[in-house]
Amino acid sequence: MSLTFALAANGQPTYAVTYQQKPVIQPSRLGLTLAGGGGFDGPLVVTGSETKDVDETWQPVWGEVKNIRNHYQQLTVHLRQPAADGRRLDVVFRVFADGVGFRYEFPQQASLTYFVVRDERTEFNLPADHKAFWIPGDYDSNEYTYTTSRLSAVNTAGIEPIQLKAAPTTVQTPLMLKSDVGLYVNIHEAALVNYPAMMLNVNPKTFGLTSQLVPDATGNAAYLQAPEHTPWRTIVVADNAPAVLASKLILNLNEPSKIAETSWIKPQKFVGVWWEMHVNKATWNYADTTNIKLANTDWTKLKPNGHHGANTANVKRYIDFAAKHGLQSVLVEGWNVGWEDWANNWKEEVFDFVTPYPDFNVQELQAYAASKGVKMMMHHETSSSVTNYERRQDAALRFMKQHGYDAVKTGYVGRIIPRGEHHDGQWMVNHFNRTAENMARQQIMVDMHEAVRPTGLHRTYPNWLASEAARGNEFNAWSTGNPPEHETILPFTRLMGGPMDYTPGIFQIKLEGWNAARNQGKQVHTTLAKQLALYVTMYSPLQMAADLPEAYEQRPDAFQFIKDVPVDWDDTRILLAEPGDYLTTARQAKGKAEWYLGSITDEQARTQTVRLDFLPPGRRYEATIYADGPGASWDQNPMAYQIRKLKVTSKSSLTLKLAPGGGAAVSFKPVGKIKA
Amino acid sequence: MSLTFALAANGQPTYAVTYQQKPVIQPSRLGLTLAGGGGFDGPLVVTGSETKDVDETWQPVWGEVKNIRNHYQQLTVHLRQPAADGRRLDVVFRVFADGVGFRYEFPQQASLTYFVVRDERTEFNLPADHKAFWIPGDYDSNEYTYTTSRLSAVNTAGIEPIQLKAAPTTVQTPLMLKSDVGLYVNIHEAALVNYPAMMLNVNPKTFGLTSQLVPDATGNAAYLQAPEHTPWRTIVVADNAPAVLASKLILNLNEPSKIAETSWIKPQKFVGVWWEMHVNKATWNYADTTNIKLANTDWTKLKPNGHHGANTANVKRYIDFAAKHGLQSVLVEGWNVGWEDWANNWKEEVFDFVTPYPDFNVQELQAYAASKGVKMMMHHETSSSVTNYERRQDAALRFMKQHGYDAVKTGYVGRIIPRGEHHDGQWMVNHFNRTAENMARQQIMVDMHEAVRPTGLHRTYPNWLASEAARGNEFNAWSTGNPPEHETILPFTRLMGGPMDYTPGIFQIKLEGWNAARNQGKQVHTTLAKQLALYVTMYSPLQMAADLPEAYEQRPDAFQFIKDVPVDWDDTRILLAEPGDYLTTARQAKGKAEWYLGSITDEQARTQTVRLDFLPPGRRYEATIYADGPGASWDQNPMAYQIRKLKVTSKSSLTLKLAPGGGAAVSFKPVGKIKA
Repeated sequence: MSLTFALAANGQPTYAVTYQQKPVIQPSRLGLTLAGGGGFDGPLVVTGSETKDVDETWQPVWGEVKNIRNHYQQLTVHLRQPAADGRRLDVVFRVFADGVGFRYEFPQQASLTYFVVRDERTEFNLPADHKAFWIPGDYDSNEYTYTTSRLSAVNTAGIEPIQLKAAPTTVQTPLMLKSDVGLYVNIHEAALVNYPAMMLNVNPKTFGLTSQLVPDATGNAAYLQAPEHTPWRTIVVADNAPAVLASKLILNLNEPSKIAETSWIKPQKFVGVWWEMHVNKATWNYADTTNIKLANTDWTKLKPNGHHGANTANVKRYIDFAAKHGLQSVLVEGWNVGWEDWANNWKEEVFDFVTPYPDFNVQELQAYAASKGVKMMMHHETSSSVTNYERRQDAALRFMKQHGYDAVKTGYVGRIIPRGEHHDGQWMVNHFNRTAENMARQQIMVDMHEAVRPTGLHRTYPNWLASEAARGNEFNAWSTGNPPEHETILPFTRLMGGPMDYTPGIFQIKLEGWNAARNQGKQVHTTLAKQLALYVTMYSPLQMAADLPEAYEQRPDAFQFIKDVPVDWDDTRILLAEPGDYLTTARQAKGKAEWYLGSITDEQARTQTVRLDFLPPGRRYEATIYADGPGASWDQNPMAYQIRKLKVTSKSSLTLKLAPGGGAAVSFKPVGKIKA
Repeated sequence: MSLTFALAANGQPTYAVTYQQKPVIQPSRLGLTLAGGGGFDGPLVVTGSETKDVDETWQPVWGEVKNIRNHYQQLTVHLRQPAADGRRLDVVFRVFADGVGFRYEFPQQASLTYFVVRDERTEFNLPADHKAFWIPGDYDSNEYTYTTSRLSAVNTAGIEPIQLKAAPTTVQTPLMLKSDVGLYVNIHEAALVNYPAMMLNVNPKTFGLTSQLVPDATGNAAYLQAPEHTPWRTIVVADNAPAVLASKLILNLNEPSKIAETSWIKPQKFVGVWWEMHVNKATWNYADTTNIKLANTDWTKLKPNGHHGANTANVKRYIDFAAKHGLQSVLVEGWNVGWEDWANNWKEEVFDFVTPYPDFNVQELQAYAASKGVKMMMHHETSSSVTNYERRQDAALRFMKQHGYDAVKTGYVGRIIPRGEHHDGQWMVNHFNRTAENMARQQIMVDMHEAVRPTGLHRTYPNWLASEAARGNEFNAWSTGNPPEHETILPFTRLMGGPMDYTPGIFQIKLEGWNAARNQGKQVHTTLAKQLALYVTMYSPLQMAADLPEAYEQRPDAFQFIKDVPVDWDDTRILLAEPGDYLTTARQAKGKAEWYLGSITDEQARTQTVRLDFLPPGRRYEATIYADGPGASWDQNPMAYQIRKLKVTSKSSLTLKLAPGGGAAVSFKPVGKIKA
C-alpha cells in the first residue's frame, strides 16, 4: 500500500493511493469549507510533517477474532491557510497493509476555536469505471436493496425513497467497488463522532467521488470546537474479496474501549415477541383505537383488540422457550403504551418508555424470567421523537434496572424531532453515541435500529452490541423483500462498520403459513438452510432466533444449529467470497475447539468445495451439515433441508450444494484425537 | 362591547368588534392555512352556533387582587370546509365588559387528526391610524425599547436586532394602541400552549394587522392533533388607560391552576450575586481561560481570575444581608462550571447544572442559609442549548431538592438548540410550559428569563412566578439603557401577559461608583425614588432587590421601603396612567390593612395629585413618602431623595412631585381609628 500526499500546482492539498503498483485513488483533493469563510478550501501551505510506525496487538471484548493486529505507518501533514489568519489544519494518514485511513485534525489555535463545517471537499478519484454495490444517498435511512452497476451508471432517481434522498448521483458508504483489473476497494469511515455521516457524490464521467456531509436543519454540517478532528475516511484495498471481509482497518482506527469493567457485557442469542407482528398474527398495539394522546389517555379503558402480542401469557411462552433451549434473552416489542398511532405523525409525545399496557405485567414477568434464568430485553421505540426520548431516557434506564433489564433494542422509525434534523446528521450521531455512553454507565447493552450505520464504534463502546442500519430480514415480511443476493453484499457494505441485528432464523418461510389472508404470496427470499448459514456469515454478537417458537418446535433438528451456534469467536476465516454472489465463512467458537461454517449463495445454485484446513491438525471432528434438501430453491421449495453428520479432519474437504437462494451451515465438534 | 361574526360574500369568516358604538375592529378575516392544503382559508360554511353566559369569581394563588370576576358571553360558531372533506373548525368568542377573546378549535373528526398549521390568517383591522407602542417582531427576543408611532409609521428596519428580526412591518404583542377618539386597545394572546407565539404584521396603509406565527426549523408553525385549539387572541378595550391595566381578561382566558396543593408557592423578595457582575465588580466565570470543553475540563486546575462573584464568602455576605433585612432568598449566578465561554458559540454542551466551581461550597452554603432562615435560589442558564438542558433537567432538579433549593431562575441567552428553532416557536413554547410543569411536580418555583412573553399561564402554573421576556433593568448597565418612559409602557405591553422580573431597586444609579474605569458615563435612567415606586407599579410576586448590599447599607432609610413593600396583594387600584407618560398605582397588602403606592413618570417632571379614597374610611394611616429630592433628575441628580411621614385618611390627598425620570413611593400603615 502506498500513499502520496502533495500540494497541487494551485496549492490544493491532494493525496493518492496505489496498491501493488496499481492506482487505487488517483490524486484527489482534500479540504473543508467553513461557514462564514476562512475554511481549508483552496491554496494551503505545508508547514511541516511527521511520520511514525505503530505495530501493536489488542484484544476486543468480543469479536470475530481473539487478537487484532494494528500495524500502520502514520504521516501527519501540517497545513496553514494563509488567506485566513494563518489558520492551521493537520491531515493525518495511516497506511496499513490492507488500506488507508485519513482524517482532518484542527489543532488548538488562537484563530480557530468555535467553527462550523459547511461541507467537506474530500475526493476519491477512482482510476476507472468500477463495478459498484450501492444504495442511494438518504439522510435518514440505509434500508435499501443494493444496486450493482458501473460507477458511470449510478442513478438513484428511479428508486423509491425510504426517507429523504439526496441527489441522484449520491450514494452511501460503505461503498464496495470492484475494478476490472481485480482490485476490491471499500470506502467508508471509522469512528464517526461529533460529525455527520459522509455520503459520496459520484461523477459518472470522471469516476470521482466527492464527500457530501449530511446537513442539519439550517444547512450546516458540523459545529466544532478546536482541538477536534473529523472521523477517519477509510479505503480498504485488496486483490481478493475475502481479504476485504477480514480487514480490521476500521476497528483499528477506532479508540479502545471506554468501558473498563466489561464482565457484564454478554454476547447473546435471543427470541422475541416481534416476528409474529410482522407476519400479522399479533399487533404491537393493544387497542385498535387511533388518535391517542399520551398524556391524557386512560389505557385501562381502551378496548383491547384481542391480538396484542406483548401480553403476559404470550411472553411467558417465549421465556419458557428460551429457557428450554438455552437462549439468553427475550425481547418484547409493544409492551409499552403508545403504539396505537405511533408512526408517521411527526409527533413529539408518542411513548414514555415506562408505562406497560394493562395486559403486560412487568413485575410478574420479571420474577418469572428470573426463575427461569432468562433475561428480558427492553424495547425503546422512539418514533424518531428523539427530544422526547432524551428527556425520558434517564427515567427509562432507571425503570430497566429496577425491573431486571440489562439490554435494550432501540428504534428510530420516522422523521426526526428536532424537526429538520436527520438520522445521519451530527446531532443524531451525537445522540446515538451519547446513548451508548449513558447505557454503558448503567451497564446496559444496546442494539440500535434505524441508527446511523456503524463505523467501528463497538470497539470503543462494546456494550453497543449491534445496530440495524440496513435493510434487514423484516423487509421480507412487508415488501418486495430482499433479493437472495442481499446477504452476500451486506458483509461487504453495511457490516464493514460493525455487527448487524439482521434477525435471521426464519423457518416458516412462506408467510401464508401464519396468516393466509393477509400474507398472500409473501415469503422470505431464502431457503431454510440459508437462514442457518446467516448466523455464521453475518457476524454479530447479538443474534435473534427471529421466528416464532412454534416454527422452531416443528423442526427441532434444524433448530439445533441455532441452539449450538456461538455469538463470540476466537478465529474467523473467510473461505470463499464474491460480493453479490456467494460467501463461505468458518469461525472458531470463543474459548472452545468447536468450529462453525456458513455458506450462502445468491439466486444461483452453486456447489462449493471447502477444504477444512482451518481445523487444527490431529483432531477428529463430527461435522453436522445442515444443507438445502433435494429440489430446494428459495422461491419454489424453500423449506426443504437435510441434515447429515460425518467425521472429518483438517485434511478433509466438504462439498456443499447450495440451492438457488440457498445455503449450508455446518457445526464441527471435536470427537477425539486422530490415532498416530 | 359588541362582537359580530359574519361570513363575507366570498364565504370567508370574519368578525368585528365595537365598543360604545365606536368601531374597535372592523370586519376582519379569520382562518388558518395547513401544510399540504385543505386548511381553513377561503370559503367556509356555517353549520351552527351556540351561545352561553358565564359569571363566576375565582381566587388566584397570588396576584394583584384577591378575587377575580370572570364574566362573559360565549359564541361558538361551527364551520365546515366544503373544499376539503368537510373538515370542521369552530371559532369560539368570549365577550367581556373590557374586551374580546377568541380562538380556533379543531374538534375531533375523521378527516382531520394530525395536521400542521402552516400559518394563521387572523386579521385585526383597525379603523384608523392609531398611535402604537411597539417593539420589532423578533422570533427570539423581546428585549427592545418601545417605539411610539402611528401605525402608518411602523418600520423596524433601522432598529438593531437582538436576534432574528422579521419583516420591517412586523411587531410583537402585547401591542398597545391609542386612538384619536380616546379608545385604548391592547392586542395579545392568552394561554399560549402547544402553539407558536403570534406576531403582527402591520399594513401601514389600511391599518390592518395580520397574525404571523413564529415558524419552526422547517418553516411550519404548529404540529397539532385534534381535538386541539389555538391560544386565545385577545383584544382589551377601554375608554381610559387605567382600565386596560385593571383588565383581568387574559387571566380569565387561562385555565385554573393545575397545582392542587399550593402552600409551597411563596411570593418573595430576593437579593442576588448578579448586579455586581453587571457593574463589572465581579464575573460569572471563575477563570479567564476560554475554549473550555465541559466534559474534559478539570475545573480545580483552572487559574481563578480573583473576582468570581459566586464564591462562598461572598454568598454568605448576601445570606447575612437577606437574613438581617427579612428578604426571603438569595440568587447566585455563576455558581456552576461552564461560564468561561458560555455564550455566542451555538454550542450544545455548555453547562451541566450540577457541578459547582471550586470556590462555591454547595453543602456549606446550604447549611449556612438554613441556619439563617434564608432560602437559596438556583440559577440555570441554558445558553439556549435546550436539548442539553432537557437531558439534564431531571438531574438538575434532583440536585436542587437535595441541596435545599426550591426556586430557580432559568435563562435562555443566545440561539436555540435544536438549531433552527426559535424562542417563540411551538417547540420552545412547549419546553417552557413543560419546564413549569416539571418544576411544579417537584414543588419548585421558577422565574424564566429570555422565555417567550407570558400569556397568563401563571394562573395555570402558579409556581411560574415571573418571566423576563422584555428589556429589563439590566440594559441600563450594558447599553444605551432604557429611556425613562420605558417603565410607563411595560405595564401596557409586556406585563399584560404576566409578572416580570424587572429587577428594580438600583440605588447606586451612577455605575462609575462601582468601577470607574469600566463604567464610564453609565447609569440607570431613573431617580432613586422611582426605583422604589417600581415595586408597586411593576407587579410581580417575585421582586429582586437588585443592587449590592453595600448600596442598601449606605441608604437604610430608603431601603426601608423595599423591606416593607409586599409582593402579594388583596387589592389594586390604577389611579393615574398614560402609556409612555406616567403611572400611579395603589395596592393593599395581602391579608393586611397596609397600602402601598407607586408613582412614576417618563422624562417629564410631573406633579401628581392623588386622592387617598382607596383607603378604608374611618382609619388613620401613617404615610411614609419616598420622593425625589429637590433638584433631582434622572440624568443630573438621580440619587437625591427625601422621606417624610404624615398622617392621612381616606379623605386626604397627596401631591407627589416627580422629577424628570423620577417617581415616588408611599407606604400607608394603619395607626388607629378616627375618633367619631
